[in-house]
Amino acid sequence: MSKKSSDYIEFITSRKSTRNFIFEEVPREAIENILECGRWAPSGLNNQPWRVCVSQHPSLKKMLAEATEYGGILESAYYNLVIFLDLEKGYNRVKDLQAIGAFMENLLLGAHAMGLGAVWIGEIINNKEQVNEIFKLSPDKYELMGVIAIGAPDEQLETKKEKERTRRPLDEFVEWY
Amino acid sequence: MSKKSSDYIEFITSRKSTRNFIFEEVPREAIENILECGRWAPSGLNNQPWRVCVSQHPSLKKMLAEATEYGGILESAYYNLVIFLDLEKGYNRVKDLQAIGAFMENLLLGAHAMGLGAVWIGEIINNKEQVNEIFKLSPDKYELMGVIAIGAPDEQLETKKEKERTRRPLDEFVEWY
Repeated sequence: MSKKSSDYIEFITSRKSTRNFIFEEVPREAIENILECGRWAPSGLNNQPWRVCVSQHPSLKKMLAEATEYGGILESAYYNLVIFLDLEKGYNRVKDLQAIGAFMENLLLGAHAMGLGAVWIGEIINNKEQVNEIFKLSPDKYELMGVIAIGAPDEQLETKKEKERTRRPLDEFVEWY
Repeated sequence: MSKKSSDYIEFITSRKSTRNFIFEEVPREAIENILECGRWAPSGLNNQPWRVCVSQHPSLKKMLAEATEYGGILESAYYNLVIFLDLEKGYNRVKDLQAIGAFMENLLLGAHAMGLGAVWIGEIINNKEQVNEIFKLSPDKYELMGVIAIGAPDEQLETKKEKERTRRPLDEFVEWY
């Protein structure tokens, strides 16, 4: 394997969730680069059924924080990227949700590329109506898909709280024909 | 932005679909590296609800090809990665489908990292029962999510048939608060 290939594979496989952030400004340009990664995600019929509310204002993050058990993470992250499925752009429920997954993974990898910490908060969809209200978005048009919290990682706390990253081995979910 | 960051952002944003392949062996190790990228995808509660049938035998690819309009692509690709949702591992339909999307995007990026061409064939889910039968997988346990066709790109044909890659600009789907 070439050095370049192994570097990219290592880049993809080393992405991990960051849940502890320091208070340090994240430049808007960094978020734009991250969104650019999402923008190029694949979607069925290239329908790109995503919408993002980028939230940086502390009062807004506080309101979002009230909609999830993981509010502390949202408040301490410099940015909260609130992701919605644009229902009018949707054409197939399975494929639209897969596209959102690809989009959100690209955002996470984009943050990883920028040397920032990020985490996907999915549990907030339990209170999706509350989040729609914050942004005055009609639930008939936009469905909350999750939040990606992004900030400068608190490396000390991350190391201290680090749990072993675990995944099933390949032979548990792959068969060769 | 550091050289390394811009290199990774460029890596993510430059991934594109390849639909024309040359007949050239793809080493099994390359597919293992690609699967490793999928393996580290995020999923809700880390449930990793994926299963992959890696198909390389020509008769098998021919059977798969019969289940989709894009059969020519499947037959000409050296490998077909047939992705299923493991319904017994699933816990939340929205999150499970998002996880599959993140998994499949990681596979596509893995192929990109390896310098291989790849495309996500979603339309085959219209004939999911037929695909389950090929692998003798019960539809109560495994739901077809799509196929990723992987091979060495036919650069000449790709260039000749190249259409402009298009995505909505950021300001059409992003709002800043």
